[in-house]
Amino acid sequence: MNEKVAIQGIKGCFHHKVALEYFGENVDIVECLSFDALVDEVVKGNATIAVMAIENSIAGSIIPNYALIDSNNLHVIGEYFLNISHNLMVLPGQTIEDITEVHSHPMALLQCKEFFKKYPHIRLIEAADTAEAAKIISEKQLKGAGAIASSTAAELYELEVLNSDIQTIKDNSTRFVIVKTQNSVLPKDQINKASLKFELDHKRGSLATVLNVMSDCRLNLTKIQSLPVIETPWKYAFFVNVTFDAYADFDKAVKLLTIMADKFKILGEYKNARK
Amino acid sequence: MNEKVAIQGIKGCFHHKVALEYFGENVDIVECLSFDALVDEVVKGNATIAVMAIENSIAGSIIPNYALIDSNNLHVIGEYFLNISHNLMVLPGQTIEDITEVHSHPMALLQCKEFFKKYPHIRLIEAADTAEAAKIISEKQLKGAGAIASSTAAELYELEVLNSDIQTIKDNSTRFVIVKTQNSVLPKDQINKASLKFELDHKRGSLATVLNVMSDCRLNLTKIQSLPVIETPWKYAFFVNVTFDAYADFDKAVKLLTIMADKFKILGEYKNARK
Repeated sequence: MNEKVAIQGIKGCFHHKVALEYFGENVDIVECLSFDALVDEVVKGNATIAVMAIENSIAGSIIPNYALIDSNNLHVIGEYFLNISHNLMVLPGQTIEDITEVHSHPMALLQCKEFFKKYPHIRLIEAADTAEAAKIISEKQLKGAGAIASSTAAELYELEVLNSDIQTIKDNSTRFVIVKTQNSVLPKDQINKASLKFELDHKRGSLATVLNVMSDCRLNLTKIQSLPVIETPWKYAFFVNVTFDAYADFDKAVKLLTIMADKFKILGEYKNARK
Repeated sequence: MNEKVAIQGIKGCFHHKVALEYFGENVDIVECLSFDALVDEVVKGNATIAVMAIENSIAGSIIPNYALIDSNNLHVIGEYFLNISHNLMVLPGQTIEDITEVHSHPMALLQCKEFFKKYPHIRLIEAADTAEAAKIISEKQLKGAGAIASSTAAELYELEVLNSDIQTIKDNSTRFVIVKTQNSVLPKDQINKASLKFELDHKRGSLATVLNVMSDCRLNLTKIQSLPVIETPWKYAFFVNVTFDAYADFDKAVKLLTIMADKFKILGEYKNARK
């Protein structure tokens, strides 16, 4: 049976691309128009697994998605990095002078802002999804409108790419996580990365102490993010990603951190997708 | 001469509220429809100072704003915490049954999502600004449409508040920073908080070492955030906020960190606005 993969967006979006590259072509796609809807589909069992953007080399973490994983007790069972290339697409025959508005996801608009400074006659308008913006132009045969989306979306919805790779920062890598309601089934010797969450009191040196333990246990930090714990002044939650060579090292750190930190939780243990 | 204060949004928005509470009623407001525009106004000297939302107890840091402060060499000279209360407002006489769409800033829509689950007939539509959404309804006398905005916006644009305090998490504190092109003029004995940025190689224990120094120098961390340095694999930038009792302690830490970390930079030193 094929995996039923929930994605944020519709076919042709970047989540779809990740789903195809991670799981192969034989997947059933469950299109969701928000991250909340995506989590709902997995929790209710309408999808067996979901692909979820989690951080971006430009805009940083998508904090609400960390909160969604945490509060729904989902497990991160894998990760995938995608270099995101944005393209300006229009109905065939239209030129950039014809275009008065460009629709896309707010993140895509943000990443391509510089490009549009040369075209002050074009208004940038927020849409729910990159691929959906492309689809609407195609379906309604909208003249004067463009979309920023993937080259896959251009093919799928038969639009013409006027300019490709228009994002300001060319090396635009986004990290996606693969989440399920059940934990990983990977053999321990294949696990070399983990996502952790814990809370600490606002006491001088409390985070340094925890990081010392991680360092002593030979864990490398690849990400750290503090968030105040709502309704508990001076309490902070930390989201941390670590990589390691030996699972035994990680296991030892987990035993220590369970004692040292409050509400210590493994959000997922998986294989590092970076070389 | 009055301060010319750049705000993100139009009069009646939360930035406006912060400007009035921080500087008093006698300020000239420069309305900006994006954070980029706001930074431009300050850099060009059209505004003497700006108010900028920087983090939120729900959604976390607004990373692009850290990048804007950093890349434009702005100085954080103060901070302000505002408890944000969202209200659903409509033209006088309209009821919730009449409303088919609600417009607001994406962050406000996110924070009030739970409330609207009871009203599935209402579509949530993203707008550039909370107050602007209110203003448009008022100016165009739009029936069937609501806005989520501050009570100030309701008064200013003569709308009726149907429901107040509709955000899911009632204690919705947002931290704003006050930024200028010149550094702080505060006497050193009034400075007890700072925002720092530095870079570290991805080497085991490098962050722990830095945090140990901060802890030894009696600095308390109130925020930490890592970001991969774009185009430099395995290099990480850290944005850190610290509080301290004695400026001399901070000064000592700065001297050490300048040697230990790459591209160490003080984004601002100012007075802690939290008790």
